[in-house]
Amino acid sequence: MAGGPLEGVRVIDLTSVVVGPLCTRILADYGADVIKVESPTGDLGRNIGGRGRTENMGPKFLHLNRNKRSVVLDLKKPAGYAALMRLVAGADVLLWNVRPDSMQRMKLSYEDVRRVNPRIIYCGMFGFGQGGRYRSKPAYDTIIQGASGVSALMHRSFGDPRYVPIVMCDRTVGMVAVQMITMALFARTRTGEGQSIEIPMFENMAAYVLDEHMYQATFDPPVEGAPTAHGGTGDPRLLSPDGRPLPTADGWICVSANTDAQAFGFFRAVGRPDLIEDPRFCSVSARHRNVRDYFAFRIEALKGRTTAEWLDIFDAADVPAMPYHTLESLLEDAHLADVGFFEWVDHPTEGRIRNMRLPNRLSGGVREDYRPAPKLGQDSREILSEAGYSPEEIDRMLAEGVTRARG
Amino acid sequence: MAGGPLEGVRVIDLTSVVVGPLCTRILADYGADVIKVESPTGDLGRNIGGRGRTENMGPKFLHLNRNKRSVVLDLKKPAGYAALMRLVAGADVLLWNVRPDSMQRMKLSYEDVRRVNPRIIYCGMFGFGQGGRYRSKPAYDTIIQGASGVSALMHRSFGDPRYVPIVMCDRTVGMVAVQMITMALFARTRTGEGQSIEIPMFENMAAYVLDEHMYQATFDPPVEGAPTAHGGTGDPRLLSPDGRPLPTADGWICVSANTDAQAFGFFRAVGRPDLIEDPRFCSVSARHRNVRDYFAFRIEALKGRTTAEWLDIFDAADVPAMPYHTLESLLEDAHLADVGFFEWVDHPTEGRIRNMRLPNRLSGGVREDYRPAPKLGQDSREILSEAGYSPEEIDRMLAEGVTRARG
Repeated sequence: MAGGPLEGVRVIDLTSVVVGPLCTRILADYGADVIKVESPTGDLGRNIGGRGRTENMGPKFLHLNRNKRSVVLDLKKPAGYAALMRLVAGADVLLWNVRPDSMQRMKLSYEDVRRVNPRIIYCGMFGFGQGGRYRSKPAYDTIIQGASGVSALMHRSFGDPRYVPIVMCDRTVGMVAVQMITMALFARTRTGEGQSIEIPMFENMAAYVLDEHMYQATFDPPVEGAPTAHGGTGDPRLLSPDGRPLPTADGWICVSANTDAQAFGFFRAVGRPDLIEDPRFCSVSARHRNVRDYFAFRIEALKGRTTAEWLDIFDAADVPAMPYHTLESLLEDAHLADVGFFEWVDHPTEGRIRNMRLPNRLSGGVREDYRPAPKLGQDSREILSEAGYSPEEIDRMLAEGVTRARG
Repeated sequence: MAGGPLEGVRVIDLTSVVVGPLCTRILADYGADVIKVESPTGDLGRNIGGRGRTENMGPKFLHLNRNKRSVVLDLKKPAGYAALMRLVAGADVLLWNVRPDSMQRMKLSYEDVRRVNPRIIYCGMFGFGQGGRYRSKPAYDTIIQGASGVSALMHRSFGDPRYVPIVMCDRTVGMVAVQMITMALFARTRTGEGQSIEIPMFENMAAYVLDEHMYQATFDPPVEGAPTAHGGTGDPRLLSPDGRPLPTADGWICVSANTDAQAFGFFRAVGRPDLIEDPRFCSVSARHRNVRDYFAFRIEALKGRTTAEWLDIFDAADVPAMPYHTLESLLEDAHLADVGFFEWVDHPTEGRIRNMRLPNRLSGGVREDYRPAPKLGQDSREILSEAGYSPEEIDRMLAEGVTRARG
């Protein structure tokens, strides 16, 4: 047993690439036994996330699939489908991320699965709610960013419609799936029943963006005196083009001076204590009203000293400030070294790889047995054997291409 | 009772602004009874998220605090602290987001709280792991973006270090807290014990960025032939400056053509079927290798027709495509109307407000009794009465400024 809050929870994972694998990686990190079911060609994510040392083992795949076991099943073959159903019978969770009509066609609808295991938590992630006109459309991270207003925020802030260069919709929706699954596991301890969960990406991301940026468009009629440009949408403080890392003599620094104490500390540190009395900047609400002036001032204020000098000054003044990290310097960050965030582990086939330890501490413990990301079909024999197949039956399945024993 | 998977779970919420309130809003949306404990001046988030119709009721606050109840307690007064401890005694979860030493000073450490309620899940969100040198630093969304590599991604993609104009670190860490709390609730059904959970923003965001963008820096020694610029960090596909919404005759459109079928459909749709045979573009791996050329071609290809025309063409060809939405057009999206995503509700004090329904469907049901976001101290009498205080005692607490009954 692995340890951790989800110890003993068995998850059958039919997903691929990012959104599903991220969800099950989190479940696995906290103790679940995740069985990654792959087609004979494997998760597409094995190859599209950068070049690996061996085939099918790209770096992104390694991070998103640690602590899982891989079984290959060709679900188009009756024997592959039958094996999946045996796994489902002994599982707590089934996770999928294709369009719902594909699950119907594969005879993997909730009704099909529930007949075999009424306690199962059946969780699907897909693009769009099934009650709306986009129901059959395919979805990817970027087009959901564009449709849900993420790109519009970039447009308003930077002048050009852009995507955020991280698959934030996939990541967010994968995290939503973790929430829904753990809530359903908890509910099952009281009701004894499983349930079906549908997680549409578009609706989740619209909520993600509009929680913050519906802003004045929340009210009907509009609030008197509130901004009305763009129909009242958009938080002008977050969208201010000068809200950015501040240039120093040798790079950038990140400063967030919000309360009066912080802002006044900032003014003193940069040699402008007079601004404490300036009616534009003398209170939280004044700085909010004059946020463009405030941010424009800040961006010019720090060019006379280095980042390291400013960090010392701001730390002493309790003004929130952090180094601006590149990805390379982040890997060398001293605090991350202090907490042992990175560790070099020996992957049995991929050599030395840099793993990230779990960021969170749970006094009840977390998973203890780190498992490196599996080769395609690495655990097929073990998993099929646990499901009750004899060695001879497994040999036959291998010979018939129903499974693969190692990729 | 509210309904939903977390029905009957009682959460004492000491948090403010975004990261904590988002976490407890999600818990509340799925059935938890969230008691928002506010100081006599209230959650700072009541006023910094846009102008409201009445004092302390800004639009962002309304979205992040629905389905909660508000009690005012001055925790600096012994009677306020005593009342909090009574609430804690009957609760399942205590959530906080100040620096850990502040919790110590307030006599609210895990040891203090556990003495009153050993089953409690004690969950803290703060900037930095307590084993590292940044342990005492304050944290805000932007400076964590800058320190965790989010700004570096923007820099590499757009040429300038910038923040993403949404509080993505706050939102991500709030979602992590939901995961940790629901996992701990589940674990408690088996162990009977609560636990303490520590969630540092910086470490969580470093993992968020580096899962995807550690990339070739995962390997030691480097993989032969893999890119080595920037120490091997960064997915060139996501960072490609031409990976963006594509201009059309009247605006932009979002297209994601990844598989061969999708890319070839795209080439045919734009009148360039010859590119199907082009060695730069004829396979997934070829397009990955030549991603800059591929993206540069796409960005010039769609200027001859309108977005609506292209959407019809791509839908017919099963090429994933979505409209590029502004925040205003997102509010009018036809699919969101189909699924009833937005609803106008009458807030008892704030007039008609636009609420967003829950994006996810759970066959076991979700919370049924929508509660609009509370005025400051709106539920003080009710909550203190539930905790066993008599009306006379509550009157005394009001007179002494230990609580407030309505803001």
